[in-house]
Amino acid sequence: MTETELIKILTRGVPRKHGNLVTGIGDDCSIVRMGKKDILVSVDSLIEGIHFPSSPRRKPGSRHWKMWGKKAAAVSLSDIAAMGGKPLFAWIDLSIPKNLSKKNIRDFYRGFLEMLKKHKTVVAGGNISRSPKNFAASVTVMGEVPKGKAMLRSNAKPGETVFISGPVGGDFLRPIPHIKMGQKIRKAGCRCCIDVSDGLLKDLDHVAQASKVKIRLYADRIPHKGPLKKALTRGEDYVLAFTDKLGTRYQVPGTPIGTVIKGKPGIEVVDKNGKLLSFSKLGFEHTVANLS
Amino acid sequence: MTETELIKILTRGVPRKHGNLVTGIGDDCSIVRMGKKDILVSVDSLIEGIHFPSSPRRKPGSRHWKMWGKKAAAVSLSDIAAMGGKPLFAWIDLSIPKNLSKKNIRDFYRGFLEMLKKHKTVVAGGNISRSPKNFAASVTVMGEVPKGKAMLRSNAKPGETVFISGPVGGDFLRPIPHIKMGQKIRKAGCRCCIDVSDGLLKDLDHVAQASKVKIRLYADRIPHKGPLKKALTRGEDYVLAFTDKLGTRYQVPGTPIGTVIKGKPGIEVVDKNGKLLSFSKLGFEHTVANLS
Repeated sequence: MTETELIKILTRGVPRKHGNLVTGIGDDCSIVRMGKKDILVSVDSLIEGIHFPSSPRRKPGSRHWKMWGKKAAAVSLSDIAAMGGKPLFAWIDLSIPKNLSKKNIRDFYRGFLEMLKKHKTVVAGGNISRSPKNFAASVTVMGEVPKGKAMLRSNAKPGETVFISGPVGGDFLRPIPHIKMGQKIRKAGCRCCIDVSDGLLKDLDHVAQASKVKIRLYADRIPHKGPLKKALTRGEDYVLAFTDKLGTRYQVPGTPIGTVIKGKPGIEVVDKNGKLLSFSKLGFEHTVANLS
Repeated sequence: MTETELIKILTRGVPRKHGNLVTGIGDDCSIVRMGKKDILVSVDSLIEGIHFPSSPRRKPGSRHWKMWGKKAAAVSLSDIAAMGGKPLFAWIDLSIPKNLSKKNIRDFYRGFLEMLKKHKTVVAGGNISRSPKNFAASVTVMGEVPKGKAMLRSNAKPGETVFISGPVGGDFLRPIPHIKMGQKIRKAGCRCCIDVSDGLLKDLDHVAQASKVKIRLYADRIPHKGPLKKALTRGEDYVLAFTDKLGTRYQVPGTPIGTVIKGKPGIEVVDKNGKLLSFSKLGFEHTVANLS
């Protein structure tokens, strides 16, 4: 089954707005209005054998588990960052196979808590189940943002510039959620942002589709590590990509890499001579889809 | 690893209260204070091969998948019921193996939506990942209750009567969350309630430990289906067990089955002659632990 088919099944009959749910399925976080604040909620998972290899499980001394625990927290926190929010609480649902050592579990959880603590986020609850085979962690995070101020995928406007908060193609094993950067650009007035989890092209395509605009990127301006095409499509960078009017306020955190224009919703990349570059795929499909 | 060891690992260094988190790990839901309302959040999972058998997967026509979808929603909603809350929103994190048919996924999700709709709960977001082997759904629900009014495990007081909202030992495949009943007893002034997910004895033991009281049950007064000992320990009943002063207000929804007394925290069951009954185990351990 394709990703598109799955998303179709799972979004049919599900409202985008409902009562005090001001943003439902289709952005980095769901937004629930509570008085003067908007509550952000996002759910993400990290599955052994899918998001990380299962081989080091047998080595109880492996430091990998701590790293994966950090990553499980980071990818969820990154969704709060993308909306310019302040993370508050996290819930963790663990599925634990019988043969996983106590040390591995402890290391995973230490990494998880360490990453949360760095961003002043507290574990508010969770669930533990046995798993028939693979270890898995599903993480729910809750954050807040002043009412109506969350940065949305759907807010890009023609004439705006596209910025990126750091290079793509970097260390995907140790992602850092750009919480402070998200808050900074949100306070500066930015209205549209996404975190680069599926790949820069794919994530900016989400923005283009949600905002009904075309996005043109200039290949030579995109800060990256490793080969360009790989860096633009690999994903798991967790830098922020955002759009705003060009001005002086983004000289520090953002590098301008493209422009928002009128046209058929989608993304295009041009080289320094204005020639279109082609890509066989937009991005990463390990994580099938993040619906909130 | 035992359940106790796991819980120890996962609750160490995690605060029970923190800022506007008024109840963290250790009850049916976490409680986050938001103005005049308390927000309830709970996370639960339903895993193929653990909570339901994996064999019918190959039959695309199987109606089991719809039933499991309903159950995935029901067990989470039941945690909101246990606190006397009104459910609002749900998030679903699905892990989908490659060989699972589109029909199975659609059936599961239909059941899930049907159960939510029955209780006026809306899907606010979610996540989809590939799974290396087993299908799994992790469900987060959010509900609300007036400030300070949630029924807690820790509120049982010596002298109170223990009630149950329905028989134990019934149909565990098709649980019904007792949402209306939870709200009714909460409005009537009840302060202590739990849903029977792990088994009546085990769940009331959670109440006894959290409230630092002893609970005595009268075997001949407990409404049940099937053999008594099995009914008291099997779990997945999702009826509500609650404690309150004996009065007339519970004549409709609750059956008195025991008393709360001073003493070493724990649970005991006596027969009609006052003789103690012994149990080899208190309850079900498939779901290792629900921490919120």
